[in-house]
Amino acid sequence: MESNRQPVIILVRPQMGENIGAAARAMLNFGLTEMRLVEPRDGWPNPRAVAMASGAAGKVLDSARVYPTLALAMEGVDYAFATTARGRELTKPVFTPATAMEKARGHDGRSAIIFGPERAGLENEDVARANAIVTVPVNPDFPSLNLAQAVLLMGYEWGREQLPTAPQPIGRRPAGEVAADRIEIEKLGDHYEEKLGDAGFFFPETKGPAMRLNLRNMWSRLDLTRGDIQVLHGILRQLTRR
Amino acid sequence: MESNRQPVIILVRPQMGENIGAAARAMLNFGLTEMRLVEPRDGWPNPRAVAMASGAAGKVLDSARVYPTLALAMEGVDYAFATTARGRELTKPVFTPATAMEKARGHDGRSAIIFGPERAGLENEDVARANAIVTVPVNPDFPSLNLAQAVLLMGYEWGREQLPTAPQPIGRRPAGEVAADRIEIEKLGDHYEEKLGDAGFFFPETKGPAMRLNLRNMWSRLDLTRGDIQVLHGILRQLTRR
Repeated sequence: MESNRQPVIILVRPQMGENIGAAARAMLNFGLTEMRLVEPRDGWPNPRAVAMASGAAGKVLDSARVYPTLALAMEGVDYAFATTARGRELTKPVFTPATAMEKARGHDGRSAIIFGPERAGLENEDVARANAIVTVPVNPDFPSLNLAQAVLLMGYEWGREQLPTAPQPIGRRPAGEVAADRIEIEKLGDHYEEKLGDAGFFFPETKGPAMRLNLRNMWSRLDLTRGDIQVLHGILRQLTRR
Repeated sequence: MESNRQPVIILVRPQMGENIGAAARAMLNFGLTEMRLVEPRDGWPNPRAVAMASGAAGKVLDSARVYPTLALAMEGVDYAFATTARGRELTKPVFTPATAMEKARGHDGRSAIIFGPERAGLENEDVARANAIVTVPVNPDFPSLNLAQAVLLMGYEWGREQLPTAPQPIGRRPAGEVAADRIEIEKLGDHYEEKLGDAGFFFPETKGPAMRLNLRNMWSRLDLTRGDIQVLHGILRQLTRR
């Protein structure tokens, strides 16, 4: 079922309620709504988590389910990624967030992303229960992602091909703006060349042809919109009116 | 120079010291080290920022420079992305973080990513000074990214392909031409605004502010070279000399 395809977020032995709340917010930013908790340190529900996850993110917490073990929390999940910063001695495929979420999107069943406790991260015992490892490529001299940030990056990668994305710019022209056609560019060039000629701009005369060519080339290169053309004609008209 | 290619992170009127510290951490996670601050609300240095950015991230704060305006903070920058969640009436290309950082990686000069204050985000006045907009695709029903998270996602996209990729040609600027930096663009905008003001261009008065903003935005968007800047100053000088 389509609705089953979003990955489940499993937080294993999370410590601070604030971090659970922040993780819920990060999930919802990218449309993820199913959270599962394994042995949260301070019990459940947790008022600090609720305080952090205001508004709609509160609903993610309301529907979160709590499990005594990771194995039980993987109910219904058939492909699980364990997030970990360190290399592991375990023989396991290692994905980047991008390749992991690409895999999750292409997966027919239910996938999960497992996050460890804030201080220590996942134990080998936990990682051994996942199909694969996912590691965020960070600066090796400062690999300090917190729990909510790790959730955010996975959510971002999950959402990157689902959410409405900004239209791709063609050249430098913004979507919705109409490019000037070549005739309009030509006329703009004519207009400037004429008025600048009258004003003595192309001086000395020996340099005139190169200056004209250069100017012509500039107008052609700037990927002007129709609006720009009007503004540039308007500027010239205003400056040369007597 | 290779070392010059990392984008500068510019925080405009940041409010909470904690958020500046968290942004420094997010930057360093992905190897970004140059932060610039425009009018930080609580002055600078800020002990709360320092408390948040422990260890190596403290060095990012130590070397952060403070500027009185965004225009001045763009010193040496020749391509700037403005991060904004809302659609804008400004005519400007819109990138996703992925396409923006792909562009930044392929860019020969210095790029910058501009972030607004926590509550309100960037003003149109700020956005008008950037070449392009970058928007994170988030859940439209819960688009609640905080400042450090926005920085984190941009850093993540910057870092994701440190492996050699085919360089993207940037803009339409010809090989061998030097991009104008943002200060040069700013001065060009000032020059035109002044002379066009004298000539009565911004008429009627009620439309003046929108016309000025639109013009400012046009100069920022055109990927002008140093040569273009000289030509455009020269045109204006010639047309307004008596």
